[in-house]
Amino acid sequence: MSKGLPKRSEDYSLWYNELVKRADLAENSAVRGCMVIKPYGYSIWEKMQAELDRMFKETGHTNAYFPLFIPKSYLSKEASHVEGFAKECAVVTHYRLKNAEDGSGVIVDPEAKLEEELIVRPTSETVIWSTYKNWIQSYRDLPLLVNQWANVVRWEMRTRLFLRTAEFLWQEGHTAHASAKEAMEETEQMMNVYAQFAEEFMALPVVRGRKTENERFAGADDTLCIEAMMQDGKALQAGTSHFLGQNFAKAFDVKFATKEGGLDYVWGTSWGVSTRLMGALIMAHSDDNGLVLPPKLAPIQVVIIPIYRKDEEFEAISEKAKEIMAELRKAGISVKYDNRDTHKPGFKFAEYELKGVPLRIAIGPRDLENGTIEIARRDNLSKSQFELSSQPIAEKITEMLDEIQNSIYSKAFNFREEMTTEVNSWEEFKEVLENKGGFLSAHWDGTSETEDKIKELTKATIRCIPLARKEEDGNCVFTGKPSKGRVYFAKAY
Amino acid sequence: MSKGLPKRSEDYSLWYNELVKRADLAENSAVRGCMVIKPYGYSIWEKMQAELDRMFKETGHTNAYFPLFIPKSYLSKEASHVEGFAKECAVVTHYRLKNAEDGSGVIVDPEAKLEEELIVRPTSETVIWSTYKNWIQSYRDLPLLVNQWANVVRWEMRTRLFLRTAEFLWQEGHTAHASAKEAMEETEQMMNVYAQFAEEFMALPVVRGRKTENERFAGADDTLCIEAMMQDGKALQAGTSHFLGQNFAKAFDVKFATKEGGLDYVWGTSWGVSTRLMGALIMAHSDDNGLVLPPKLAPIQVVIIPIYRKDEEFEAISEKAKEIMAELRKAGISVKYDNRDTHKPGFKFAEYELKGVPLRIAIGPRDLENGTIEIARRDNLSKSQFELSSQPIAEKITEMLDEIQNSIYSKAFNFREEMTTEVNSWEEFKEVLENKGGFLSAHWDGTSETEDKIKELTKATIRCIPLARKEEDGNCVFTGKPSKGRVYFAKAY
Repeated sequence: MSKGLPKRSEDYSLWYNELVKRADLAENSAVRGCMVIKPYGYSIWEKMQAELDRMFKETGHTNAYFPLFIPKSYLSKEASHVEGFAKECAVVTHYRLKNAEDGSGVIVDPEAKLEEELIVRPTSETVIWSTYKNWIQSYRDLPLLVNQWANVVRWEMRTRLFLRTAEFLWQEGHTAHASAKEAMEETEQMMNVYAQFAEEFMALPVVRGRKTENERFAGADDTLCIEAMMQDGKALQAGTSHFLGQNFAKAFDVKFATKEGGLDYVWGTSWGVSTRLMGALIMAHSDDNGLVLPPKLAPIQVVIIPIYRKDEEFEAISEKAKEIMAELRKAGISVKYDNRDTHKPGFKFAEYELKGVPLRIAIGPRDLENGTIEIARRDNLSKSQFELSSQPIAEKITEMLDEIQNSIYSKAFNFREEMTTEVNSWEEFKEVLENKGGFLSAHWDGTSETEDKIKELTKATIRCIPLARKEEDGNCVFTGKPSKGRVYFAKAY
Repeated sequence: MSKGLPKRSEDYSLWYNELVKRADLAENSAVRGCMVIKPYGYSIWEKMQAELDRMFKETGHTNAYFPLFIPKSYLSKEASHVEGFAKECAVVTHYRLKNAEDGSGVIVDPEAKLEEELIVRPTSETVIWSTYKNWIQSYRDLPLLVNQWANVVRWEMRTRLFLRTAEFLWQEGHTAHASAKEAMEETEQMMNVYAQFAEEFMALPVVRGRKTENERFAGADDTLCIEAMMQDGKALQAGTSHFLGQNFAKAFDVKFATKEGGLDYVWGTSWGVSTRLMGALIMAHSDDNGLVLPPKLAPIQVVIIPIYRKDEEFEAISEKAKEIMAELRKAGISVKYDNRDTHKPGFKFAEYELKGVPLRIAIGPRDLENGTIEIARRDNLSKSQFELSSQPIAEKITEMLDEIQNSIYSKAFNFREEMTTEVNSWEEFKEVLENKGGFLSAHWDGTSETEDKIKELTKATIRCIPLARKEEDGNCVFTGKPSKGRVYFAKAY
């Protein structure tokens, strides 16, 4: 199965594309730029959704659903929103097909032209704030804490499975508050929820930071983000949380009666993560044998494979396998027994390596005699014999899954640390960017001009101003002008 | 709150519309024909989704995701599909906006015209079967049992919240099989899953039946359905399951190597339920005070309301309320304590009646003294005193919730039985249809001509040929021609 998967060291990009397809995660569809998320890939996304949804609800949010279509005029209402956004999008102009007169198929009925074109939502601030206008009258209606799980469309020219597709799945939170302070706290809270999710479930260490004005969401006063480091030394923005100020409230005239008897515009936030996280998950941990999944997001955590020649052996092994399965399931571990007789063990081993199943148990006739099983870890490919009488099997497996989860995280964390370099001169900047990659921690003079110039020269962008950065006087790595602290530059997905 | 909700007996249609809005279930959006599903409405839909999704998975299905857009040419590939379907749909013709030169906003960029128009999916058979072509080579790849949760768009001219909207949410299952027999079994299985869900969770009795050729899904060889009866005597199709034969396999050239070494087209099914079920749920059970929710789908199953004058009373009651809440939550019951001091108990009572919360517990100072609470049932509006020492509270509430679930079902079942009338002459048919409504169980000669004629004259359609009907010789209620059994006619949503 995994034979022929390209090596990361030779062609990282090809490795990624092939892995996504061969591990049955996703594939390109016949519709330009749109992907098909295959059952195995979707089951990982479902696990992500379930955890995120739980975290959103625990922080007081509820789900709702808003229209797919946005009237074209809405986009113009928030000036910087339309400027920075939504130019490349799918436009619905007609609402009917009819049979071609020559019988060649169907054509668009020219009579069924919409008075105002509809845009397939690239994001939903405009349609949601136009709705909030009716939902919010008084401070008693606030805060309004709503999330939606939805598909969105941005007409990307160069697409890549999960990382950049014309249609993708995401969640978008849209909240409304009575004060700037409360909205800013929400913005921070949701960035922290994303960071916690990435680190705890995806085993993906992230830098929490603030976007520069250049990289800010169009229509936001402030954008917080989490940034992750991929194995090829490129950064990936894994989630953003925006403080919208009163911008959308003003654009859609959303005012509320304050506790003090006044009338004021509402303060807003929005925040989202998407199926892009699938790309991050794959690129952060996987290896030349295939996917490596953190146990907390693995649809199958343990696979059991029988090794046998004779039918009696198979029956005896199956009995033992079923015993073990029952024990594991009781402990909430998801386990599969692959008893197909159409494939050899070696084939199955490769298949589950490709699919990133964290633990593989093999049972042969000698194991039955000895009361042992062989347990193989996917993350470090180590194998060990386990004596079934030595410890309850569910306890052992639970320990190992925890160990794998932590170990994957540590590995990614150490890699990220290694790939974060303090650079103090322009020469050093260029040298490290070209030969090593990763995050470049460097002083910057705070101007968009310098940021643009560096991007133009090197393709590196400021990923974020880390929230945890220390105040430190220095000089901009490019202009030499004074700076108050370091920011993270990187080439990015 | 519920003051002013129109009465069902006076204007059923207005009652429904107002109820949907006032109970915070959904509202019309600024986008023609599209609805906003509000948080409370969406939380009911989420409960439906969770149960259905579990049932799909228990019957071996997995979820996946396919593109929102369908190339126009795909629709023409299955002849009867395009004929019977998909004429009224949203058509994407362009992929970019640009600033108007006069600065008036954004306009569609005429240069960004798609070579082939894209249709926003009205259903996904075509795009999915074009994908299955690559997924299926051999009988080993079968059966393929896939479901997707998605939004779809059908450009309806006359829309109604939940019942008929341009965009709606649904699930669509698409399966592929090696034999006609297996595909037909799947078609039946999924109809039964829908029926079980409707009856067990929605407390909605349904008739399982087969559609006539006229009413069949475009592209199917057979359509099974579940039909429910609403309180105004109109029927509502609550779910359909289609046997597609080899139609889509032929249209998209999906062949497989058979076990016997041959090559054959794959057999298909598709099946779906949508947010329309929300409409059915509302219309089947609710009353002039508002929503009546079956406990198994109620986002809040129990609400506790304190009745007090003085602050000390409130504190003592709150302590008791929290004790009860903890007990109920431990038993998996969802409970809310409404301790708002901005609203009077009477206001709260009306609000939770409007929202259909199955049980309301009121606690006053005298209750504290006596060790009692007042429990009110939403479905029959009965109230009773409960002595807390007489039985563990969680046990009592669990019993009552079960009782309500059963009682709502029985009420709907009895109503449906009452509203099902055997008619044996054309006069009787017209008389019952006009004055009583409901299902008319009548003989029919089996021809589309008669079916069309009856529809034209009375607006009644054949809802289904009940699967449980008995063979019975008779004469068509309209033409007098011979018939082998009765079918169900009704006016329908």
